[in-house]
Formats: sequence, structure tokens, C-alpha cells
Amino acid sequence: MTSFTPATRDLQFVLHDLLAIQSADIAGFEDLDRETVEAILTEAGKLASEVLAPLNQSGDRQGCRLENGVVYTPEGFRDAYVRLCEGGWTGLDMDPEYGGQGMPYVIHSAVGEMHCAANMALNMYSGLTHGAASTIHAHGTEDQKRTYLPNMISGAWGGTMNLTEPHCGTDLGLMRTRAEPEGDGSYRITGQKIFISAGEHDLTDNIVHLVLAKAPGGGAGTKGVSLFIVPKFLVNEDGSLGARNAVSVGSIEHKMGIHANATCVLNYDGARGWLLGDLHRGMAAMFTMMNEARLGVGLQGYAQAALAHEQAVTYARDRLQGRAVTGAENPEGPADPLIVHPDIRRMLMDQRSFVEGARALTMWGAFQLDRAHRAGDKDAEALVSLLTPVIKGFLTDKGFEMAVSAQQVFGGHGYIEEWGMSQIVRDARIAMIYEGANGIQALDLVGRKLALNGGKQVMEFFQLVQETCDDLGNESDLADMGDGLAAALKRLQATTGYFAEKATKAPNDALAGATDYMHLFGHVALGLMWGQMAKAAAKALENAPADRNFYEAKLATARYYMARQLPATSMHAARIRAGGDTLMALHADAF
Amino acid sequence: MTSFTPATRDLQFVLHDLLAIQSADIAGFEDLDRETVEAILTEAGKLASEVLAPLNQSGDRQGCRLENGVVYTPEGFRDAYVRLCEGGWTGLDMDPEYGGQGMPYVIHSAVGEMHCAANMALNMYSGLTHGAASTIHAHGTEDQKRTYLPNMISGAWGGTMNLTEPHCGTDLGLMRTRAEPEGDGSYRITGQKIFISAGEHDLTDNIVHLVLAKAPGGGAGTKGVSLFIVPKFLVNEDGSLGARNAVSVGSIEHKMGIHANATCVLNYDGARGWLLGDLHRGMAAMFTMMNEARLGVGLQGYAQAALAHEQAVTYARDRLQGRAVTGAENPEGPADPLIVHPDIRRMLMDQRSFVEGARALTMWGAFQLDRAHRAGDKDAEALVSLLTPVIKGFLTDKGFEMAVSAQQVFGGHGYIEEWGMSQIVRDARIAMIYEGANGIQALDLVGRKLALNGGKQVMEFFQLVQETCDDLGNESDLADMGDGLAAALKRLQATTGYFAEKATKAPNDALAGATDYMHLFGHVALGLMWGQMAKAAAKALENAPADRNFYEAKLATARYYMARQLPATSMHAARIRAGGDTLMALHADAF
Repeated sequence: MTSFTPATRDLQFVLHDLLAIQSADIAGFEDLDRETVEAILTEAGKLASEVLAPLNQSGDRQGCRLENGVVYTPEGFRDAYVRLCEGGWTGLDMDPEYGGQGMPYVIHSAVGEMHCAANMALNMYSGLTHGAASTIHAHGTEDQKRTYLPNMISGAWGGTMNLTEPHCGTDLGLMRTRAEPEGDGSYRITGQKIFISAGEHDLTDNIVHLVLAKAPGGGAGTKGVSLFIVPKFLVNEDGSLGARNAVSVGSIEHKMGIHANATCVLNYDGARGWLLGDLHRGMAAMFTMMNEARLGVGLQGYAQAALAHEQAVTYARDRLQGRAVTGAENPEGPADPLIVHPDIRRMLMDQRSFVEGARALTMWGAFQLDRAHRAGDKDAEALVSLLTPVIKGFLTDKGFEMAVSAQQVFGGHGYIEEWGMSQIVRDARIAMIYEGANGIQALDLVGRKLALNGGKQVMEFFQLVQETCDDLGNESDLADMGDGLAAALKRLQATTGYFAEKATKAPNDALAGATDYMHLFGHVALGLMWGQMAKAAAKALENAPADRNFYEAKLATARYYMARQLPATSMHAARIRAGGDTLMALHADAF
Repeated sequence: MTSFTPATRDLQFVLHDLLAIQSADIAGFEDLDRETVEAILTEAGKLASEVLAPLNQSGDRQGCRLENGVVYTPEGFRDAYVRLCEGGWTGLDMDPEYGGQGMPYVIHSAVGEMHCAANMALNMYSGLTHGAASTIHAHGTEDQKRTYLPNMISGAWGGTMNLTEPHCGTDLGLMRTRAEPEGDGSYRITGQKIFISAGEHDLTDNIVHLVLAKAPGGGAGTKGVSLFIVPKFLVNEDGSLGARNAVSVGSIEHKMGIHANATCVLNYDGARGWLLGDLHRGMAAMFTMMNEARLGVGLQGYAQAALAHEQAVTYARDRLQGRAVTGAENPEGPADPLIVHPDIRRMLMDQRSFVEGARALTMWGAFQLDRAHRAGDKDAEALVSLLTPVIKGFLTDKGFEMAVSAQQVFGGHGYIEEWGMSQIVRDARIAMIYEGANGIQALDLVGRKLALNGGKQVMEFFQLVQETCDDLGNESDLADMGDGLAAALKRLQATTGYFAEKATKAPNDALAGATDYMHLFGHVALGLMWGQMAKAAAKALENAPADRNFYEAKLATARYYMARQLPATSMHAARIRAGGDTLMALHADAF
């Protein structure tokens, strides 16, 4: 069975040694001492390993089933979901005004890693609700907030986001779902939405669908789109549940993975809905949800890699096969464990250096959001906005790659479902696709985010990396890492100029390099995290800590990342410079 | 449904324009004119697209089932298998002495690509039989050949290879299966074998298992291992089937993919077996099968990528989403097709340049085998021996990556089983694992093949690449490609020196770079193929052919490969030079 061990120690390192969250100038953060955070993470980890993880494989095997319009989640899911709600985890970072616990988003993210790694499909139910609730919180009227938020925050009601239609996913301007005003402030929503995660299930009494639709007078394209609240059951004045709304499940999808999360076709047949936010400004409102969701999907990418890595390490320690080339390390046994072999180490270190770097980057991003939302820090907001496509796109591409790498450590056993590695790979695959396929993330980075604040934001990011290089250079033990990072940064800076130059003059050249640029950026961002973690580890070691092994491992892993992962930046830079001509040379008919 | 179009035109280009098989100094090859080959490939393609491909998705969905010791293949498989046999495809390249058609191995491989792309799981049944029959042909007594080969070549009987046991896969020296001599020339085989592809099924009347086991007196490790023929049903003197042998199916595995191929646990309980080849020399005999099998697995890697690419191209042409950045290309429609977008092109061109390059490399390898086996060309034998781990390891790693890339083109639809992309990815994944996991291929390349003929072989390969660079340099239109390839070759040569230097002095440094070296080698090998294909295409264009689009597309794709794939060589070279210290720095307990 897939095992799961919460990364409490490493998360504490990131939150306190790296980010020093307690010293942040944000109201309430001064209370986040190591002990308080330890207590939260320990409880979250217990739930993850004792309740959520044991249902991960059985959930995959059973999947969801649709019977007479009702979707049944796998055995045990309802009980586990109730535990998640009872523990207050669904409202951890939500507004206390509506029943939340008001904790920072970065703490919610740390807990999210555990719950997502333990059982991604189950965690998605509350994850979608969280996103929907955040959107209502940001754009809803006070009445809407009072009507929906308390039950969504307690987990009694679920939430979903409805964007995609059969003929359009990325290009939402093609949307056909219509909203007709009823004259009483409500609308009648008609159309079909597909790929709706957690679209229907038996975990909650009600589901609050947020639905993009075209209301009259909005004009063509995405400009005409508005966002609506469409509850499965209408809510009476007194808060009790009323009539069933005209939204039904057409089918549930048979997917490659996340079998235990019901991905639904939802049919809206004149369902009653209420405008959320401004008319014809639905895309902007939905992006509140999307941006949070994209960070959450980046988290899924590395959380699945973390789960895969844990299994691979255990297997590599247990499985005896061959002898170390430098002499037997288990001479009394029939063979040495796999972990003695350099090529196995390569895979394990690739995974480890990615997972720990990605964890740092995601928590750093979440912390920037806290600065933005709780301390009004505009710079932090712009910084996380710049990095959001990188966190989503790079961490899910690499997260999948690392899950595949961990599966490879198992040899033939990795291909057999019982061992659980296949599921992790299958589950991790979706993160590269949903919430904007990774190609779209790359376009967002190159086409929009680079120009943020007139290009100021990306320059500030480079400055941050440069300072870290300089800091590393000042420490003789760390200088080699600084050199590696500085070389990667130079490549990133040079290619950023290329995009600025090509953006209007030769847009195909720019777009041809978008995905490589996102990966180049991602490598530098993880290099930045590793540089800062190396500094933090070196500093901690000065005080001769009891767990010096932990910090020494951190330094060794940082060094691995710089030496063996950052060279990918030269490949990406060369591909970017190759431009778009070779891509576009063939006529579409020649394929 | 997954569509399948045989790559007849492209295979013809490879066989005639690139390899010029008809002019080879090999008996019988002079008959292989374009028309003859066209007739064969057309028939093979028909069977693939009309009979095998329609069963690919249903086979995945139904899988195999085990009932009372009998394994049932999916609906329609038996009929399709009969068609495969009746067409003579199972014995296409086998010895006419035993009922084969005596065609070249390279023709068998071209046909194999079609049948494997159309239905990998189904094609594996005959693929395993082919490998087992080749081994009997190479190592069997005349009596054994007469007893087994005619029925295996006709497809009436199946064949398998039995290596892996629960506690050992790669390290076969740990094997526990025993063979006790009966005194009458036969042995009693006892033990458990796992992961036996096509181990039991309802397609054939008998199954000839080739089983590795330890016979008395062989000493420890792999040296004590012998190879045995263990038929499911004993064969009477007159060739009719006799008693059921003591081999039974313990279970069939629940796998990530290739659901329609029965992967069995086989229990041998004193089953009667006969020595194949020399006592205690079983590993050498098994390697006859393994080497052929490794080329065949490399072929699976790119064949699945080819299938995935075909779907992605169709989808990218049909699906309307967004507008070309340089202006609408489908102005009368609601949006442009996906294929106008550079990032979609990037994925399609990655896939295309890989598939066509891999096809050329695989056919080139098969052609070298023909030279070796049918013209006694020792150089060709050594050359293909050097390249075998590259063909297996590189083509399956990249083949999987390209299947994932093709799946990505579909966005959310790629994740839904009905579209078929998930299956292709799941099926392609196994090729990186079986017949020696790809890490083992890399070790074979670095640890054994580089030293082949005292290093002479690898130097000859470099010479071949250099000559191609020079040839390209002599044509002004192709000189840019020659430059790209020459730069990659230089990196390969430099790192080859590194391995020679480290092999004995610092073996961990060498082994740490093995996989990167295999990929570096693979890129250069595909670059070599693209260089030669570019030359061949340029030459064909001189004669103003009717299908000049075909040749121009070939040149454009060659240029893409050089410009956008070969830069990976710089990354691999840098990783290799990083050595082993950062990999091995952590103590195993620190993970």
C-alpha cells in the first residue's frame, strides 16, 4: 500500500528558517511560533496519514459511480470528509466573520500539501469549495456571503467552478451557455458544462456551482461573459434548503486518474442563478478563483511527486539487487539495496531536489499572497502574479516527470497497480492540463506577466536572484552554488530581452519559445529557493543544532540542484533562440 | 476512436532513399524493389488499420481475465490473431526451412511498426513467440527445431521468455528456480516466474516457455543459470500434443497499461523441460532473445509515439480554439484550428521529428542486423550491438515523453479514456521498464558497449557522424544542419573521453552520468539519421519529383530537429561532467 509521511520537519524549515513567517509585518503572524505551527501541522499530518491516505488506492480502484442522477463517492470517503470538516480544515484560512479560522494562506497551503499528497482526489472536493468560497468572498454581496459562505466554510456545502463547454476550454469567448434575466434579480441558466470536478457527489447537502454564462447585452467574446451562483438546491430565506434547481449530471467521465473525484458533465436547463460580481465582468471574477486554483494545482504537482518519492526511497532501501560498483555495502546479504547504485541515486536526488525546491517556492508564493491580502503589499501581489504561471506550469510538468522517475525506480513493480505508483503517475498527469493547460501558462507568462508594471516586476525578481547569488558568493562554502545560479540567471535575463524584442515584431518567435522560457524561469526560481535554503541551512549549522544531519542534507541537495538541474537552462535558452521559423515551416496540410 | 494510418510512404523513404536496401550486398535483397516492398507494406498496413487497430481500445477496456487457470483475451483477439497467422506475418523473416518466409529482418521491423502501433498488446503475443523461436533457431538442436519451430512460425503455438522472479529482475544471479536432471535428458523445473508477458492465453494450442533456471553444478550467480524449453503441453514423437505440463498461472497482473496482454505469474511445479543450448550458459542464450527484444521494444517506444502523434495532428487540425497571433487563418469560422498556435506546433514538431528520426534509426539497426546475420558483416554486428541500448533506452524514454506531449495537445480531452490518448501513454510507459529498465540500458552502454572492440566501434560511429557533417557542410542549403550536428558530436566525443577516464578510477562518476550519456548518444544518433535523411531528401528533390511536398517536409523536419532537439546535448554533457559526488553525498539514511 502507498505509505504517506507528512513532511512536517521540512515544512517547518521552509516556514521558519526560510520565510521567517513569524517576523513578517502582518497582523497575527507574530503568533505563528514554531510550537503553534507544529501543533497545526501535526494534527493535519495525522488526519492525512491515518484517514485520507488509507483511502487513496481504494478510491482509485472503486472510482465514482452515477446512479439515477446521484454520484456516489468511493467507500469511506464520506466519513473521511466529515473528519476533514470536523477538524476545521475546510475553513482554516477563511474569514472568521463567516466561520473560518482566519489562519494565513501559507498555513493552509502547508496543510494542503499533506492532504493533497495523501489523497488528491478526496482533497479536491474541499479544494474546489475553497476556491468557490474565496470567489464569493471577494465578489459577492453581503447577502450572498451570509447565504453561502458559512456552510461552504464548514464543509456542509460544496462548491465548483464551471468554465469548459464541449467545444471550448481555453477559448471561453466561444461559450454558448446563456443567462436570461428573470426580472427579479435572478437569471435562468441554460447550457452544458463539462469537466466539472466535484460536480456532483454524496459528500455534502448542497453544491454551490459558480457558472460562467453569457447574459444579454454583453457583446462577443469573453467580454460578454458573466459569473453566476447556481446552487444545486435553492436556499430559503431562513437558510434551509429549498427546491432542487434545474442542474443535472449528464455523465461522469472515465478518466486516466483521480478516479475518486467525480468529473461531471452538468446540464443547466433553465436553472436559477444569481449574478456574482459585475455583469459582463465574469472573467475577472473567475480569475480570483483561477489564480488561487493555479497555485493549488502547482502544489498538487509537487505533492504527488513527494508521495511518489517517498515510495521510491522506501523501495530503493528495501529491494536488494546487484552490488555497489565500489564494493559490497551489504556483504552479509545476497545483494546490496538499490540505493547504492548511482543511477538510482540520480533519480532519487532529482525527485528530492525538485520536491523540496518546489515546496519552498509554493510556500513562498502563498506567503506573498498573505503579504498582498493581509498587509496590502502591492509588490508582493505583483511578484506572485508573475510567478503564478511558473508555479502552475513548471511544478506540474516536473511533478509529473518526477512521479514517472519514482515509478521507474520500482522496475516492473512500478507498472503493477497494486504498488500504487501507476496511480500517482495517472493522478499527477491531470495537473498539467486543468486550470489552464501548461502551454497557456507559458503564454500568460510571456504574453502578460513579463510586461507587468512595465517590466518592473521581472526586473525585481532578477534583482532578488542576483542578491542571493551575491550572498552565496560571500560564503566560501557556498560560492560554487552562487556561480551555478548566476550562470542560470544570466541565461534567463538574456532570453527575457529576446521576448521583449520579438513580442510585437515577430510574435511567432516569442510564442515558439514560451514553454521553454517557463521552464527556464522555473529552474531559476527553484535555484533561488535552493540558494536561500542553503544560506538558511548554513546559518542553522553555525549553532551546532541537534539535527545537523537535516541541515547538511539540505546543503547537499542544494548543491545537487545547482550542479545537475540548472544545466537544463542552457538547453532551454538555445531552444528559445532558435525562434519560430523551424516550428512554422510546415504547412498545416503537410502534417 | 483511435485512428491508425500506416506510415507506408515514410517507411519506403527510409528503406529505399535512406538505406537503399535493394543495393545491399546481401543475398536476396536485390529482389526488394519499391514495388515488392510496397505490396508487403500495403497488406501489412491493411491488416493493421482494419483488423488490429479497431481492437486496441476495446482490448484495453476489457483486459484479460483468468478463470479456472485459463486466460481469456479480449473479444475479437482470437480472430485477429488468426488473421495475423494466415497472412504469414508471424513467420515473415523466419527460416524457410521451418516454414518461414525468409524475408529480411528490416522488412519484419517495418511491418512490426505498423502492427505494434495499431495494437501493441495484441502484437506482443506474436512478438514474444518470434523472440522465443529465434532463440530456439539459434541454440536448439535440429530435433528441437523440428519439434517446435514450424508451429511457432505459423503462429499455431506461442512462446514466452521467463526471467524475472519475485525477488529478482535485474540481478538474475539471485534466481531460485531449479532444474533437476531426470537422467533421460529432461529436467524437472520448479520455481515461480513473474511478469511473463503472454504467459497464458487462448490464442494458441500450445505455449513454448523458455525458462531460466539453475541446474546442479553451475556455481553461484548468473554463471549457474541454464535455459530450458518448457512447453505447456508436452509434444509427442509424432508432433501431436501430449500431456499437460506442470506449469500453471498463479495470477494475471493488474497493470497500468497493455491490459490486453496477459502478464502472468507462472508456477513451475516439477514441470518437464529440456535444455536449450549449453548447460550453465543460459544467460548467453537468453541474450539472443534479449537483443532482438530490445530492438523490438525500442520500436514499441516510437510506434506508440507515432500513434499518439497521428491523433494529435488530427485533433490540432479539427479543434477550433483561439486565433493565430499573426491574424485569423480561418476567418469565416468561430476560431482558428489549434495547429496555428506556435506552442501546439512545438509539440507536434517535437513528436514528428522524434518519430521519423526514431523510425530511421530502428530500421537502420534492423538493417545492420541483416548485414550481420545474412552477410556475415562483423562491423555491422558490432555497430548494432553498440546502438542497441541507445535504441531501447532512448527511444522508449522519448517515445513516452512524446506520447505525453501528444496527449497534452488534447487538453482535458486527453485525460478522458474515450479519446484513447490515456491508453497510448499507459501502454508506452512499459517500454521504459521491461527488457532491462532504461537505467540498465545506460549501464550496458557505458559499462560494456563503449569498450566494444577496444573502443574501436564507438570511434567508427563517430567517424560516420563526422562524415555526415562534412557531407552536409558541402551543400550550402544543408550546411546549418551540419553545424548543429557537429556541435553535438563534439559534446558526445568529449564526454566519451570522460567515461574512459573515470571507468576504473572513479566508477561512481562514470555511472552517475550513464543515463545522460545514453540520451546524449541518442540525440546524436537521431541527428545522424536526420542528417542522412536531409541529404536523401535534397537528392530526391533534384529530380523534381511529383511529391516534392514530402521531401520538403523532410528537410523542414530535419532542420527542426537540429535546431530544437540537439541543444539537449549541452544539458546532458554538463550533467555528465558534474560527476557523482553530488549524487552520492547523502547517506542512505538521510533520505
